[in-house]
Amino acid sequence: MSSPRMRRMRITDLRIHSIAIADPPLRSSYGLHAPYALRTVIELESDDKIIGISETYGGDAQVRQLEALRSQIVGANPYRLTGILSPMVEGQGAGDARSQTYLVPGENPLDAATRTYAAIEVACLDLIGKTVGQPVCDLIGGRVRDEVPFSAYPFYKHAGSGGEGVDAREDEYGEALSPEGLVLQVQQMITEYGFGSIKFKGGVLEPDIEIETIRRLCRKLGPKVPLRIDPNSAWTVETSVRVGQALAEELGRGGYLEDPVAGLENMAEVRRRLLAQGITTPLASNVAVTSFADIPRSVQLDAVQIILCDHHYWGGMRQVQHLARLAKTFGTGLSMHSNTHLGVSLMAMAHVAAATPHLTYACDTHYPWQSAKDEIVLGGRVPIRNGCVHIPDRPGLGVELDYDQVARGRERYANCGYRKRDDEAEMRKHVDPNWKRVLPRW
Amino acid sequence: MSSPRMRRMRITDLRIHSIAIADPPLRSSYGLHAPYALRTVIELESDDKIIGISETYGGDAQVRQLEALRSQIVGANPYRLTGILSPMVEGQGAGDARSQTYLVPGENPLDAATRTYAAIEVACLDLIGKTVGQPVCDLIGGRVRDEVPFSAYPFYKHAGSGGEGVDAREDEYGEALSPEGLVLQVQQMITEYGFGSIKFKGGVLEPDIEIETIRRLCRKLGPKVPLRIDPNSAWTVETSVRVGQALAEELGRGGYLEDPVAGLENMAEVRRRLLAQGITTPLASNVAVTSFADIPRSVQLDAVQIILCDHHYWGGMRQVQHLARLAKTFGTGLSMHSNTHLGVSLMAMAHVAAATPHLTYACDTHYPWQSAKDEIVLGGRVPIRNGCVHIPDRPGLGVELDYDQVARGRERYANCGYRKRDDEAEMRKHVDPNWKRVLPRW
Repeated sequence: MSSPRMRRMRITDLRIHSIAIADPPLRSSYGLHAPYALRTVIELESDDKIIGISETYGGDAQVRQLEALRSQIVGANPYRLTGILSPMVEGQGAGDARSQTYLVPGENPLDAATRTYAAIEVACLDLIGKTVGQPVCDLIGGRVRDEVPFSAYPFYKHAGSGGEGVDAREDEYGEALSPEGLVLQVQQMITEYGFGSIKFKGGVLEPDIEIETIRRLCRKLGPKVPLRIDPNSAWTVETSVRVGQALAEELGRGGYLEDPVAGLENMAEVRRRLLAQGITTPLASNVAVTSFADIPRSVQLDAVQIILCDHHYWGGMRQVQHLARLAKTFGTGLSMHSNTHLGVSLMAMAHVAAATPHLTYACDTHYPWQSAKDEIVLGGRVPIRNGCVHIPDRPGLGVELDYDQVARGRERYANCGYRKRDDEAEMRKHVDPNWKRVLPRW
Repeated sequence: MSSPRMRRMRITDLRIHSIAIADPPLRSSYGLHAPYALRTVIELESDDKIIGISETYGGDAQVRQLEALRSQIVGANPYRLTGILSPMVEGQGAGDARSQTYLVPGENPLDAATRTYAAIEVACLDLIGKTVGQPVCDLIGGRVRDEVPFSAYPFYKHAGSGGEGVDAREDEYGEALSPEGLVLQVQQMITEYGFGSIKFKGGVLEPDIEIETIRRLCRKLGPKVPLRIDPNSAWTVETSVRVGQALAEELGRGGYLEDPVAGLENMAEVRRRLLAQGITTPLASNVAVTSFADIPRSVQLDAVQIILCDHHYWGGMRQVQHLARLAKTFGTGLSMHSNTHLGVSLMAMAHVAAATPHLTYACDTHYPWQSAKDEIVLGGRVPIRNGCVHIPDRPGLGVELDYDQVARGRERYANCGYRKRDDEAEMRKHVDPNWKRVLPRW
């Protein structure tokens, strides 16, 4: 037996693609989705001509952050690059808590470093996986599940499916601005994807209408489908408690109440008041707790019982795994938040979820809102069956880029004029010229 | 460009070696080290005929735990085995806190699962690293340091260097049962290994003698060498506070007070009383906090400011990385504990430390107490220079087995009669027939 040898591996090129994709006019407390959502796709090519990919938040600022690291990335060994860049995710101290209350995900300057790191980490892992012929989930500890459950993510929605001119997509779901419309939307999603749980984006209509929406969903789907509502901090403590009471039964069966109110102290107050009434519906958050620095205070206050992580801005897959261990240690649940994304991000979410034992709720995904016409994954959209994404028997993330589709996405980016996400501006442009995001609104 | 392909990889054999090595008569509050220390070495061979290795605690019970997993190990893909076995480390819930106060490390039945998992994880990572030609530290996130600092680990010690008959080793350090003897021992270790910090094993002589020992060390080495003392829970709260006061200056300069007293509540009481006197010397522990389940209470009480982890019983390298992230999040320091070990364990400790950004103190090592004659690493002992272990430019852990030496270790195991560690029995046999471990003793 000869001694095993070192193998050199080097990143020879970094390619960054800013793309735009059609996005339907979805509503949230942040405002309105623009006709185009922006994503950034990165490619790392190695000296073996193997390509690792990842997808993250879009816009010019994200590209600048990645470009600033070019000299550290090109020439690096992908196994070591994540260690070299680790100060980007390890730098956060106790003073670096960063709320996302007033900023849409992807536009928070306080997580620019962790977001950028994550995009590089995932591309490195994909590159390594494709080089050694192993799926990413098995590089980071080994899968604990092959099927990753996702939940339906219904929104109140105006007519239309986003994109403009030749980019306009078929409006598969139609308008849904009432409880009835929402129930139809959910049924359609379940028929197509087989979702077994529902996360409903609230904070848009009067709380009583949203309560009615959840009740109708519950009646239609039966008690076995867990229901969640996420008004993105649109409510006061009083309203949050009132909704929590009104929906104690509907949300209490494996569901949760997500970010009803802004701020850890207010979340804790809602929790206390609900518990005092015997209502144990857990509170989830991807707004009050968005970094490790937020956790000690959250634990101390019992403000958040379920952390909704996102490898895109928590600093990548390994940071999510650390977070999961931490959450389990403190008896906190863990699930995954999403934003408008394509198949590369979906597969990254699925891989990290597959290798994270402590994942206590089905993950969110916006994926059904995107069109196959905009998908950049070779072979077309990633299937969601029985509400699950299957980890395929393919190396890396299990997907590769369709370069024609990437080129179309780049062209849309060049032409669409959007360079960052601003849901408030869209709301003023399309719905109400005087609209402002007011927190709490109700 | 063709699509990247999956590569199959399979473990074809598990080999388990129980070995015994000479161990000098070191003293601690647990009693006396036996003339032989026991270790278990495992080999995982792949279908490519590559061999991954690891080293863990010894004795027949450890072998039985590994043997019980044979059918799951042989035939498995080493990238996936860690996921398949993850319930062994993920199973711990809040009810599974496990103190090591009354048990020597390696003999605690409550960490049998995490200990066994760790041995398999490390061997899988070594196997993967040797297969793909990358060092282990770069498989688990990428190194953040090439040089891993270790501290000297002086003990009160009787004459002799362990082993019996042909196994007896040269007594390099001689007897040290007084402050003077201890200082000489430390100077000798520093000369040989260049250690930049000192962890002194106390809990053996009267506290005043141990205080005097630290003071002499401080005078001899100067204020720039951080000093720690670890009496393994031998003291009362009062004595702990008294020692903490007496050594405020000596331990306060980058050192710590380790497990002065048993139990989280008592540790917290010592901390409170010291802080009340303006003494900020942190308390470290590898006894009161030995699993994730111990942490919430420790954080709540501010009982332990530095967790001394050990990948061998915390559940492996990735669990240590999770722990480090958690510790950083809560403002807790992190370093590494050790027990009698050879070069395979030393390299595993060095690799995980290299890939763990939040490592705030030099790690412990018993390595200088072992003899080159017992080393199982091909080419001889791992060098410690300037107090550091260097991560070599070699795949996996960077070491391979010397099979002749392993065979000698197995023979010693067969002949020595020891099958578990029992420092109390040794103390009765060699020092005082009526000796009992009494906590607190002073």
